[in-house]
Amino acid sequence: MALNTIFFVLICQILAVPIKGEGYLGYGPDLTGTAGEIWPKPLWQDDSGRYFDMDPNNFQFVAVNRNCPLLQDAISRYADIIRKSAQGYVKAPQTKVVRRIQKLSVNLTRTCGTLPSLDMDESYYVWGDGRIIANSIWGILRGLETISQLLVPMPNGMLRIPETEIYDEPRFKYRGLMLDSARHFISKTKILQLLEGMAYNKLNVFHWHLTDDSAFPFSSAVYPELSQKGAYRPELTYSPEDVKEIVEFARKRGIRVIPEFDTPGHTASWGASHPEIMTTCSGQYNGQLGPFNPTKEATFTLLYKFFSEIRNLFPDKYLHLGVDEVNPSCWESNSQIQNYLASNGLDNGDIPYLYLERFSANITSLGWKQMAWQEGFIENPWMAWPKDTIAQIWFDYKATAATLTKRKFNVIRSQDWYLYVLETGGDWEKFYNVEPTDFSGTDAQKQLVIGGEACLWTEFINEHNVLPTTFPRVAAVAERLWSEQAHRSIDEAKLRLEEHNCRMVYRGIEARPANSFGLC
Amino acid sequence: MALNTIFFVLICQILAVPIKGEGYLGYGPDLTGTAGEIWPKPLWQDDSGRYFDMDPNNFQFVAVNRNCPLLQDAISRYADIIRKSAQGYVKAPQTKVVRRIQKLSVNLTRTCGTLPSLDMDESYYVWGDGRIIANSIWGILRGLETISQLLVPMPNGMLRIPETEIYDEPRFKYRGLMLDSARHFISKTKILQLLEGMAYNKLNVFHWHLTDDSAFPFSSAVYPELSQKGAYRPELTYSPEDVKEIVEFARKRGIRVIPEFDTPGHTASWGASHPEIMTTCSGQYNGQLGPFNPTKEATFTLLYKFFSEIRNLFPDKYLHLGVDEVNPSCWESNSQIQNYLASNGLDNGDIPYLYLERFSANITSLGWKQMAWQEGFIENPWMAWPKDTIAQIWFDYKATAATLTKRKFNVIRSQDWYLYVLETGGDWEKFYNVEPTDFSGTDAQKQLVIGGEACLWTEFINEHNVLPTTFPRVAAVAERLWSEQAHRSIDEAKLRLEEHNCRMVYRGIEARPANSFGLC
Repeated sequence: MALNTIFFVLICQILAVPIKGEGYLGYGPDLTGTAGEIWPKPLWQDDSGRYFDMDPNNFQFVAVNRNCPLLQDAISRYADIIRKSAQGYVKAPQTKVVRRIQKLSVNLTRTCGTLPSLDMDESYYVWGDGRIIANSIWGILRGLETISQLLVPMPNGMLRIPETEIYDEPRFKYRGLMLDSARHFISKTKILQLLEGMAYNKLNVFHWHLTDDSAFPFSSAVYPELSQKGAYRPELTYSPEDVKEIVEFARKRGIRVIPEFDTPGHTASWGASHPEIMTTCSGQYNGQLGPFNPTKEATFTLLYKFFSEIRNLFPDKYLHLGVDEVNPSCWESNSQIQNYLASNGLDNGDIPYLYLERFSANITSLGWKQMAWQEGFIENPWMAWPKDTIAQIWFDYKATAATLTKRKFNVIRSQDWYLYVLETGGDWEKFYNVEPTDFSGTDAQKQLVIGGEACLWTEFINEHNVLPTTFPRVAAVAERLWSEQAHRSIDEAKLRLEEHNCRMVYRGIEARPANSFGLC
Repeated sequence: MALNTIFFVLICQILAVPIKGEGYLGYGPDLTGTAGEIWPKPLWQDDSGRYFDMDPNNFQFVAVNRNCPLLQDAISRYADIIRKSAQGYVKAPQTKVVRRIQKLSVNLTRTCGTLPSLDMDESYYVWGDGRIIANSIWGILRGLETISQLLVPMPNGMLRIPETEIYDEPRFKYRGLMLDSARHFISKTKILQLLEGMAYNKLNVFHWHLTDDSAFPFSSAVYPELSQKGAYRPELTYSPEDVKEIVEFARKRGIRVIPEFDTPGHTASWGASHPEIMTTCSGQYNGQLGPFNPTKEATFTLLYKFFSEIRNLFPDKYLHLGVDEVNPSCWESNSQIQNYLASNGLDNGDIPYLYLERFSANITSLGWKQMAWQEGFIENPWMAWPKDTIAQIWFDYKATAATLTKRKFNVIRSQDWYLYVLETGGDWEKFYNVEPTDFSGTDAQKQLVIGGEACLWTEFINEHNVLPTTFPRVAAVAERLWSEQAHRSIDEAKLRLEEHNCRMVYRGIEARPANSFGLC
């Protein structure tokens, strides 16, 4: 039967079926993940090789210095996570230990913050004997996540923790996940799970692309007709109370929430109830509604009132203005706009600035700093954006990052981190080594790259696949943005991600498999 | 700003962003699905162009001829589905109707069957005035699904139904979905949802690949150690009661359940508790455990007892024997097997037959007909399989289908219907026009193609993505297997699938989006 053997090997080659260890598979999971390794990889970790243990039913968190409600909430959440991990999927072998720990001490050295921000300090120290020290509550939160990942149950039921010393801080200060809740409505329940999973990956910005052409799912108190007419269905909306709950849930996890009500394009859903602020096209697109009309007072009146409401719901310092994919043809075809330009000595090239300058000034006056998609800077090169405005780059990365950092804008990378792009298999690897500083520029330019953001555009994503499409794939982005640039080994990351995914699944995140067959 | 326009169009071309109708998007879903069209497409449908209506809160099903518990159960299930559809995502415009229907009459003309089978009659007639006629309960079930799809709510709250006449029967009698519950454990809850979704697509076989190298998740009453040692975790198992519930749930929906406990390869998980029936390899794979050892009585004793238990749990006439990917090297390296061959005047070429002939005879004696993967026929060409044995083809389709139908085996196609193969977007199209008769052969050979089966191999599928990976993509396979070969238009199918997916999502199936943005 030598023919059979040759045939078998041939078929395996043709179909790319892995022949494990070039022999017969044993039973059990394909990969044995690590046990007690951290995701994302910390900046600095030194292990002695010895271990402590801790009884999951007999330990306490002690706040040994400053305390505050955020700290109390975090301690209680992580005490629960740690207790439950004793039954988790991740297991350590029975290991000799040098001592039993009964206390996890949390040392917050400075006054507790209340609101996560772009410049928050997320650094922390963790020692395996059960100590966390950080200068800010945000560092404490990251340290708690780390210590919860170090603790892994052994066969005797005790949790094992290495005698380790960790100093950790993120490489980039902006580590985001964007959700488009307009193309498909994503329920509050799923959004809270997204945030929970983000915290397990030390992601710190939830960029909420709330509205688009297709739908207006935010139920405004000031302009209720926006969602009454612009949402897919009345029940597919977020109330102000939903928003508050989401923002508060995120805040407790050190996650900023930056809303985006994309304008002046991608606004058809506003036109469902307020056609008067839209541009009616003539010519090629006759009768269609184009971008907001920047020559009407009504446009800015409505926007000012609407964003005043939004300002009170989203405490973060930043608002995302959108400004992507604005097709100017409609503006240029509209006779009222043309008359306005003629009366004011302007031309077509001025139209976007009529919108952007006034809208941006209004947003500034409401107390916001600003973000926009790259078109806001590249297509509108004369726009005087306020200092600290952030450009989000989603295509043509190398050239755009070079150009915009030369013009001294802060930038974040989203190109190549679109989560709807799917391949067969555990396709996180393609996201792992995407590098935000991969463009030609000076050190000073590279310093202006403040991070990146994975994007959940929801053409092909709904309620039912949003979580398994995100997790564990976004973990690859999270590690790229947190850990040192030199960490590039897929082979090393794979086994850590196997553990990390098991941990997430066990904690209730609806993650798909990371690599291959097994428990998670 | 002509430059901007050119830039916009260029970017859209580069990124393949659809510019809807070459202009500005309106608000609302991208695609407007059909309203009241059937998936899969019926064999024959003739509409008058007129409509009836029905009050979702004031109608009754009447069994006007034979009756039985299966019929009663189906009527009550569909009465509920139809009542709830009044709030569903699919809507018809307000249409003038000729008459109100208050009764849905169900005319079962012959004695009610109790167990779905390969040769069950699934044909039925449906009239839009509220009549279903079929010769068998299985046809009634398919007709109920059809009538539930015809009924769509109008703005006035009434359900609309066309004055239509439908005669329908499937093109293929075997229309399956295979689930591998060994590589990842899939909970009973998710399996019941899979079955529910299968019924909505008129699929009729649930092929349950229960065990594999990686895990043995079935908790046997006769050999409890098989799962105690071979399952990933003790709680990741199906009890005999779980199996009974799943089989009964399927039966009520006219779905057969064909179990597969893959042998003689893919059996490492059996070896966890019963290494004595495995082959211990020497030489290249020294110390590893290979396929079942066919020269030991213990092997057949255990299998006979085990499959006697299985026989009582799975009433279907067919058992799937597996027989895929058997690498004979280990058999050939084992000195006890070599001694056996020498003493009996046999050689290596006889080993697989020692297993297959005796095992197959035992399975026959237990009252089963048989299925196996193609290797059981191609690699073992002298195996005298019982009449009616079905070959499942998963690679090299054209050559294999030609060869096996020439040898007069019934075949089903699975190649190109592996659901874990993912692309970006609504990637059901690639499954839609895969054709089971696409090989060179006579009409008589083509007649031996009895259907096909989509496969959920679970290397990259777990509890959390199994449903959105399956639905709506498997609907493409379901229509190919039910509807006429001539139905090949993606454009026609797309809008019907948009409706069908909305219907499935509304009924509680965790389906991902079919095509693009919208409510479903």
